[in-house]
Amino acid sequence: MYSRNYPSRLLQDAVDELSSLPGVGRKSALRFALHLLKQPVDNVERFGQSIIRLSKETKFCKNCSMISDNDICDICRDAKRDTTIICVVENVRDVISIENTMQYNGLYHVLGGIISPMDGVGPTDLTIDQLLKRAENEEIKEVLIVLSTTMEGETTSFYLYKLLSKFNIKISTIARGIGFGDELEYTDEITLGRSIQNRQPFVPIK
Amino acid sequence: MYSRNYPSRLLQDAVDELSSLPGVGRKSALRFALHLLKQPVDNVERFGQSIIRLSKETKFCKNCSMISDNDICDICRDAKRDTTIICVVENVRDVISIENTMQYNGLYHVLGGIISPMDGVGPTDLTIDQLLKRAENEEIKEVLIVLSTTMEGETTSFYLYKLLSKFNIKISTIARGIGFGDELEYTDEITLGRSIQNRQPFVPIK
Repeated sequence: MYSRNYPSRLLQDAVDELSSLPGVGRKSALRFALHLLKQPVDNVERFGQSIIRLSKETKFCKNCSMISDNDICDICRDAKRDTTIICVVENVRDVISIENTMQYNGLYHVLGGIISPMDGVGPTDLTIDQLLKRAENEEIKEVLIVLSTTMEGETTSFYLYKLLSKFNIKISTIARGIGFGDELEYTDEITLGRSIQNRQPFVPIK
Repeated sequence: MYSRNYPSRLLQDAVDELSSLPGVGRKSALRFALHLLKQPVDNVERFGQSIIRLSKETKFCKNCSMISDNDICDICRDAKRDTTIICVVENVRDVISIENTMQYNGLYHVLGGIISPMDGVGPTDLTIDQLLKRAENEEIKEVLIVLSTTMEGETTSFYLYKLLSKFNIKISTIARGIGFGDELEYTDEITLGRSIQNRQPFVPIK
């Protein structure tokens, strides 16, 4: 017999699994399952296998901890990259976001989280030791720290800043300010205040 | 090398597949993929296999065309069901919706669509012949037609009504009217007008 009024155990199992995805409820999961049921079996086989392979075969770059198909990721192996700068980010998604801007051509270092005592995440849970080993390399001239501006993010940034200060390298972070297209009246006061403090020379568009 | 700035081919493939789900864009697909990457491999294997099995092993009930784990579905095999009434619906989801009301204890018949010349769906593409064969059975006393109130739904309902009229059975449809909790001022005029035409004796709550 079936439970929760699903007509088959197979559908029930698929809905259970699909509803484990973030932000997906049982209604969406059912919609996904019925959509997949309408597709050719070969396509669904490929769908399922791509997910299983992702989980089984994905590696983490031994250098920067980015996810990768190989022991060393494509970015670390790319000869066209600027190997004198490392951008430190919290996770894989941040790397993808920065890559999509096409404004950065250096290397990355994925921390795997930020220091958060409330969540039981301490410095040793992150890839900080590996970062320090990389910073020892004479080739490195700059570390660009790009973490979120939450309490935990700021704490982690400061912690990294202190550790990296002993090396003879530039330590930088990204500019904070009013986003392009944002209106002043809807901007929070801290951002507006900081962007006035950090005001920059006006460069007319030619 | 990777394309579209995904750090690995495995991630790219998984995002491509996940973004084929209805209503899922590439950003959500990436979120799903990164979520799955954080899960234990065994769980993801079970996730993928449940979807592949759904596609490979799901059958359609030989009686009512409902999806099923067996040749005859659980509802058709259930001895506690009222086998004198058949509810005709467009698809599997409609069966699940009606089952969830717990107000219906009869059998179903899944048409597999509605007649829609614009989409190239004619009567022979649906399970209408099977429905007529079932209606021939002397045991059947009533056919409850529950299709959407779109032009195509109404056309299909009328088409079925004409075909079923030659049998000595009751043909019914569900009540249309103002939903429970709906406010009059937001109800469309056709629904309001019909619900006045089809007014019913007032039954005080005791």
